[in-house]
Amino acid sequence: MAIWSNKFHEEMSQDAYQFNQSIQVDYRLLDADLRGSKAHAQMLGHQGILDLEESDSLVKELEQMRQDYAAGTLAVDFTTEDVHSFIEAELTNRLGTIGKKVHTGRSRNDQVATAMRIYVLDELQDFIKHSQAAIEAILTKAEGHLDTIMPGYTHLQRAQPITYAHYLLAYAQMFSRDLSRFSDLYDRVAADMPLGAGALATSTYPIDPFYTNDQLAGFTAPYINSIDAVSNNDYAIEFLSDLAMMSMHMSRYAEETIMWSSQEFRFISLKDTFSTGSSIMPQKKNADIHELMRGKTGRVYGNLMSVLTIMKGLPLAYNKDLQEIKEQLFDGIDHVKAMLTLLPGMLEATIVNKDVMYKACGTGFLNATDCADYLTNKGMAFRDAYQVSGDLVGYCTENRKSLEELTLAEYQEFSALFDADIYDAIDLKNCVYRRNVTGGPAPEAVTAAIARVRDIIK
Amino acid sequence: MAIWSNKFHEEMSQDAYQFNQSIQVDYRLLDADLRGSKAHAQMLGHQGILDLEESDSLVKELEQMRQDYAAGTLAVDFTTEDVHSFIEAELTNRLGTIGKKVHTGRSRNDQVATAMRIYVLDELQDFIKHSQAAIEAILTKAEGHLDTIMPGYTHLQRAQPITYAHYLLAYAQMFSRDLSRFSDLYDRVAADMPLGAGALATSTYPIDPFYTNDQLAGFTAPYINSIDAVSNNDYAIEFLSDLAMMSMHMSRYAEETIMWSSQEFRFISLKDTFSTGSSIMPQKKNADIHELMRGKTGRVYGNLMSVLTIMKGLPLAYNKDLQEIKEQLFDGIDHVKAMLTLLPGMLEATIVNKDVMYKACGTGFLNATDCADYLTNKGMAFRDAYQVSGDLVGYCTENRKSLEELTLAEYQEFSALFDADIYDAIDLKNCVYRRNVTGGPAPEAVTAAIARVRDIIK
Amino acid sequence: MAIWSNKFHEEMSQDAYQFNQSIQVDYRLLDADLRGSKAHAQMLGHQGILDLEESDSLVKELEQMRQDYAAGTLAVDFTTEDVHSFIEAELTNRLGTIGKKVHTGRSRNDQVATAMRIYVLDELQDFIKHSQAAIEAILTKAEGHLDTIMPGYTHLQRAQPITYAHYLLAYAQMFSRDLSRFSDLYDRVAADMPLGAGALATSTYPIDPFYTNDQLAGFTAPYINSIDAVSNNDYAIEFLSDLAMMSMHMSRYAEETIMWSSQEFRFISLKDTFSTGSSIMPQKKNADIHELMRGKTGRVYGNLMSVLTIMKGLPLAYNKDLQEIKEQLFDGIDHVKAMLTLLPGMLEATIVNKDVMYKACGTGFLNATDCADYLTNKGMAFRDAYQVSGDLVGYCTENRKSLEELTLAEYQEFSALFDADIYDAIDLKNCVYRRNVTGGPAPEAVTAAIARVRDIIK
Amino acid sequence: MAIWSNKFHEEMSQDAYQFNQSIQVDYRLLDADLRGSKAHAQMLGHQGILDLEESDSLVKELEQMRQDYAAGTLAVDFTTEDVHSFIEAELTNRLGTIGKKVHTGRSRNDQVATAMRIYVLDELQDFIKHSQAAIEAILTKAEGHLDTIMPGYTHLQRAQPITYAHYLLAYAQMFSRDLSRFSDLYDRVAADMPLGAGALATSTYPIDPFYTNDQLAGFTAPYINSIDAVSNNDYAIEFLSDLAMMSMHMSRYAEETIMWSSQEFRFISLKDTFSTGSSIMPQKKNADIHELMRGKTGRVYGNLMSVLTIMKGLPLAYNKDLQEIKEQLFDGIDHVKAMLTLLPGMLEATIVNKDVMYKACGTGFLNATDCADYLTNKGMAFRDAYQVSGDLVGYCTENRKSLEELTLAEYQEFSALFDADIYDAIDLKNCVYRRNVTGGPAPEAVTAAIARVRDIIK
Repeated sequence: MAIWSNKFHEEMSQDAYQFNQSIQVDYRLLDADLRGSKAHAQMLGHQGILDLEESDSLVKELEQMRQDYAAGTLAVDFTTEDVHSFIEAELTNRLGTIGKKVHTGRSRNDQVATAMRIYVLDELQDFIKHSQAAIEAILTKAEGHLDTIMPGYTHLQRAQPITYAHYLLAYAQMFSRDLSRFSDLYDRVAADMPLGAGALATSTYPIDPFYTNDQLAGFTAPYINSIDAVSNNDYAIEFLSDLAMMSMHMSRYAEETIMWSSQEFRFISLKDTFSTGSSIMPQKKNADIHELMRGKTGRVYGNLMSVLTIMKGLPLAYNKDLQEIKEQLFDGIDHVKAMLTLLPGMLEATIVNKDVMYKACGTGFLNATDCADYLTNKGMAFRDAYQVSGDLVGYCTENRKSLEELTLAEYQEFSALFDADIYDAIDLKNCVYRRNVTGGPAPEAVTAAIARVRDIIK
Repeated sequence: MAIWSNKFHEEMSQDAYQFNQSIQVDYRLLDADLRGSKAHAQMLGHQGILDLEESDSLVKELEQMRQDYAAGTLAVDFTTEDVHSFIEAELTNRLGTIGKKVHTGRSRNDQVATAMRIYVLDELQDFIKHSQAAIEAILTKAEGHLDTIMPGYTHLQRAQPITYAHYLLAYAQMFSRDLSRFSDLYDRVAADMPLGAGALATSTYPIDPFYTNDQLAGFTAPYINSIDAVSNNDYAIEFLSDLAMMSMHMSRYAEETIMWSSQEFRFISLKDTFSTGSSIMPQKKNADIHELMRGKTGRVYGNLMSVLTIMKGLPLAYNKDLQEIKEQLFDGIDHVKAMLTLLPGMLEATIVNKDVMYKACGTGFLNATDCADYLTNKGMAFRDAYQVSGDLVGYCTENRKSLEELTLAEYQEFSALFDADIYDAIDLKNCVYRRNVTGGPAPEAVTAAIARVRDIIK
Repeated sequence: MAIWSNKFHEEMSQDAYQFNQSIQVDYRLLDADLRGSKAHAQMLGHQGILDLEESDSLVKELEQMRQDYAAGTLAVDFTTEDVHSFIEAELTNRLGTIGKKVHTGRSRNDQVATAMRIYVLDELQDFIKHSQAAIEAILTKAEGHLDTIMPGYTHLQRAQPITYAHYLLAYAQMFSRDLSRFSDLYDRVAADMPLGAGALATSTYPIDPFYTNDQLAGFTAPYINSIDAVSNNDYAIEFLSDLAMMSMHMSRYAEETIMWSSQEFRFISLKDTFSTGSSIMPQKKNADIHELMRGKTGRVYGNLMSVLTIMKGLPLAYNKDLQEIKEQLFDGIDHVKAMLTLLPGMLEATIVNKDVMYKACGTGFLNATDCADYLTNKGMAFRDAYQVSGDLVGYCTENRKSLEELTLAEYQEFSALFDADIYDAIDLKNCVYRRNVTGGPAPEAVTAAIARVRDIIK
Repeated sequence: MAIWSNKFHEEMSQDAYQFNQSIQVDYRLLDADLRGSKAHAQMLGHQGILDLEESDSLVKELEQMRQDYAAGTLAVDFTTEDVHSFIEAELTNRLGTIGKKVHTGRSRNDQVATAMRIYVLDELQDFIKHSQAAIEAILTKAEGHLDTIMPGYTHLQRAQPITYAHYLLAYAQMFSRDLSRFSDLYDRVAADMPLGAGALATSTYPIDPFYTNDQLAGFTAPYINSIDAVSNNDYAIEFLSDLAMMSMHMSRYAEETIMWSSQEFRFISLKDTFSTGSSIMPQKKNADIHELMRGKTGRVYGNLMSVLTIMKGLPLAYNKDLQEIKEQLFDGIDHVKAMLTLLPGMLEATIVNKDVMYKACGTGFLNATDCADYLTNKGMAFRDAYQVSGDLVGYCTENRKSLEELTLAEYQEFSALFDADIYDAIDLKNCVYRRNVTGGPAPEAVTAAIARVRDIIK
């Protein structure tokens, strides 16, 4: 029987009831709701809305239910409409008439909103912690590869030499921004504790949302407007938007891992612990986990698009459409968290083939920019130096030579500014070590960057 | 143990294995896979790739597994990697070495692709059937309201009088297009039976995909290119696109029902069987089911966006990302089907307040166009008649009168063309009955339209 | 001055007017609207709603305006609210009072709906034509590469040998499905000619939509319900969904081209006509055009998501939100058409490095499946043969050998079934030529597939 | 001629060139690029990479170009590849060889990235300013309606009485969160100045990104990793996500305005300055501007979905796909800014029909919760009081009475706890004024909330 059943309301059609039921989705809010309900009961007592004895026994029993649930001895009744109705029913079961008083001065609307925010604050803390761990794993891996020289790419064409550590730091930066977004969202959610907003118009009881706020760890201030408090789902959209970006970052890493572990690149090998085989081709070792990670990005985009669509044009305040948002948010959280926590293991399972990486820098004229810079240093305007260096590349291509293989005489046919020190200028290792500026690939610069990242994510 | 395990492949990390597992999602393909496997085994026997005895015993046992599953006596092992591995393992369990031969000349790639198409053809038939039923329910409801006059809206402003039957037929048309799209997709899927495509390059065995095709009810032709056959997911995208449109249609109907059952409109009342109440406001009767229907539209859009994103830029042929598509498609199918099958009940639970509807036509100058048309019939150019009629509306607004309440003298101050027959021209009922042209609101026209729809959806 | 201006309506705020104006977007409907208006005027005359002389002069002048526009002598006034108002104003300018009669018995709603459908039918014909051309370009390219052997991939790991022609045919199939979807949509749009639906409730004039329908080339039947006729935008969604799928297909082709033209793959080279350089790295040759093609896929997905979102929950009939749909549809059409028409040129600019492709088949054990199949042919169950072949690959990897390089003695240590004919079984070319089944990579099979495709796209 | 043209690169196909060109989109970055280029030239001089004279003349001329552009005397050459190439060409035109030196030590990649961030910081400041103005307009409107009593809704059913001021504050809160998100994004962008990152690997010149950073107003720190600096588009995604949420908020406001200005609600009337008419129905006054606002929300969602899709799975560092992101971001910025700046005018054009609002509170049992609360205050448990109140509503409905119209005797048949003070408890005005808690509808509470909002948005 639904919590709102009375003689005024006839029974729902069975099909409609099942379509409407949400306990399969929202039972995960059980602990969060119990915490919210406890704070509400405390406030009711403090404000004299309930007797202190009543309030105390509600608080005590709600805490007992938390412990029972944690211990696995509180069985959720999945025929109930939702977890919030279940809690009230169970409480009334345990306490009798006193249980029927827990809903005084609140509504399911602010009750649900509060449980959701508590849940979201918990999850954000979790994401912050796991992001820090993932970044630290990246930095540690990077520290082991400060002088692992490899080609840097633009347009998937070899561009200029970098190091594997330098490459990895790009991802540290991405996750560092994700972390910063989670943290901003945490602050925004914490400053908007919704309990007290009632159905949409607060309550005629002398409730004190500031007092309730103080009972709930993590929150910094109660809502400013009760209509907004019960209809606001910005936090779900913003969380999913942050998750979409984080999954996008992982999809880029996954894409490169897949490509780099191909027979063509062979920059890395994946341990069998993170590979799969084929049902028919006995030789196959596939990066399924990375592919799934890439694919799940689409899933999270879908979650985001769903909630944005649901909210569009919805009149105030609560509408049942919002029920769907929970499931989308939970799905996004579950899948991105799975990806994020797999990341350190994936890094560990990534064997770097240093020799292949280094050898790959030998073809593709990765030092052509350095050749142009050489001329600029000798006084030629950059755009002219670019032309000369381009012509040299054309000459090399025709004659199947690398820049290193040209004679000084050949160089000098293109410009009189060339001298013997050109070979030093285009030496691959020099090309990397000379890029020792802020954020550059030289080992010293990368070490400095690692320190900056560590400082920020603390 | 994964089907691809051998000495060449070490064991996966437990976390990775769980991330990779799909049986929780794809177990619903069990019957479809058994049907596909049966057809494959028949072909292997027919082509002499297996002995007829072997082939027969495979076919027989696969059919037995279907019956066992239907009877609930085949327990799925949810620790297996996927349902396809489970089937091969179970078959080998039952038949010994012969079971190990079922995978001859095929790969999991074409096996999965085939199971999915079989499943999709089944579902499309289901959607076609349920769409027809929903349209028929609409038409039947319409037949009971041929002369239920109500305001037609544009921009949510009362525009011109229509009938409730005429209104309902707009939805019949929407679902009729949905039906037509399902049917087109059915034909496209049926013409592309993928079994025989192997991992991506068919097989060295003398398989005959045309023969296999003939064993599988519903299909009309085998694939044309094996790489495409195992990597094509267009059908999932197209299905979800069709479902997104269908859910959009339902969201519009839901929106209007919600608005029309408000205290402001009161055009309809919902029976309690399709309403809910509030945990705190005892008087509330909410259209939760309709709101959920509107909200779930966002969910289906998300499903569509997910699969589009997943497919973008994916190199040929199979990649594990595609695994995610199944879950999105299943989710879309489940939710739109739930909505579609609820529809007839929702229509039945909709009480039409004819009097309120009719009365609503009395304000808002719904006959102002008829007034302009009246002048046009008397020879005035339409744009000039529009001006005069507009000026009359302005005059009425200022003097708080309706067009019906103006005296002939008042009319004639605006144009000498007005005569006593103006009252007949702007009579509400006449306004509806005179719109007796193709697709118009007059009862006769609606009856003709109903016949056209019935003819099309057959 | 807006067409609806009169004493009843005060002037709009200038900001609001500009926000509301759509002529910058809808002026491209000019010719389509003129054709629709002509048909309407013809019908008005035929039905006696206007005098035949009036009707004739309207028809003649509308045709004249088409010719003037084609000749560049009809200047659109971009301060008008929309192109439809402009046409009525221009017509009235040219014909005086008769021009004011063109709007008799119709509304801007059905007028716009008709112009859009005419435009869409034109565009669909264009897409059908260009799709056929693109497929033909692919088939022609394929015919030149029937025996160009290359690695086939799953999970971006070398899987089994195929041919470049076989690969290309996967794309022919994708575009062939696109073509089929365009064609289905054409039929759906053609069967729903909306002129006569009026604002939403047809007209009190004795209009004949069937007659109008016959005047408009391409259409097969008029609308069934007038409310649906003016509020239906399914065709825009379906068109954008079809375009999204087509762009997705192109994104996959683009992705592979980008990857295959990297220094690591070198399977293909792009001519300079379809490459760009870098502002700083003189050696760079980038596949910018392919990258843009891949990127624009995201744009088209956005178009689709926009229109789906706009339509969700919109009450009947016309709402101004629908204005936004036009721009999204036009944008999607323009960009996918640009991509589609570039495709033949891109294929032409693709130089196939046959030797590199063939050599790439030498590593990665692409013949391991053939080795397993060999054993199966000798009587071993497939799953056991798979194990043996997997063990062989493990042995080879450890000893840095290919399957071709093993001695028969080595083979026989793994299974006594091996004999001298194993070398023939795992010969690369044989591996391709033996896959001579429906849709397979063998030249003969590909030739048959090309014929099937040609037959279908006619 | 493209900036990268040399003998090594042949000319592009004309079609490809046009497809690739971006100046039509990126010319709006002209001033931002000039500012970035100036800072770069300053740094080149300061670091001794160029002579101070050269550096000075570059700086001076770049500033001159800014002024010329502002004055309308710098004509953009729209045949150039992009605005960045145009600037270098124009500079070289003006300064000769010195102009060719501006590109020393940078690449188009970091140049473009810098111009975009400068542009984005400008726009974010603009959005912050306009958001503050919109919120202030809402608060001012609210202050005029502290005691304008109206029904509050959940599920579009009348729920409890609120005030129009209380309602408006829900929107103030939404825009206040938008503002807070813009501000967080500003900080994130400001801390990541990308100039110096080069093509992807910084430069061999002794550049100093910290010095450059100090020359550029708004920025707080240079990039940490050069690969990330040139490939990071998180800011575009986050901006569009923020814009999507803001447009969603406006869509909700628009939806309610449209509904409330219907003949059924009549809560508000729109001035003609923000209404439109119909081409055929002379009486129509439509909320086109609000409808467009609601519709454009779909557009912005599309922008967001586009950029998310584009970034997914893209390997590092720059790829041409990113070009598409600019256009999506610009489009989102333009349209949401147009909406945001229209908002104060729309509020001003909204006439509040106080009497209609108040009268609407009379039906729908908005005081049924207060009736239950009354019993709770008398000692009944809330869930029991809810039942009694529900039964009373049922009784009223049957007998067509309101709660105010029941006699005390009737009340007491349902519970002996009822006394004469029940009439005071359910008095409409009392129902509002008694909800004088944090965030509640009572005038005093709303006044306090207004102060809290003003404090936050400062």
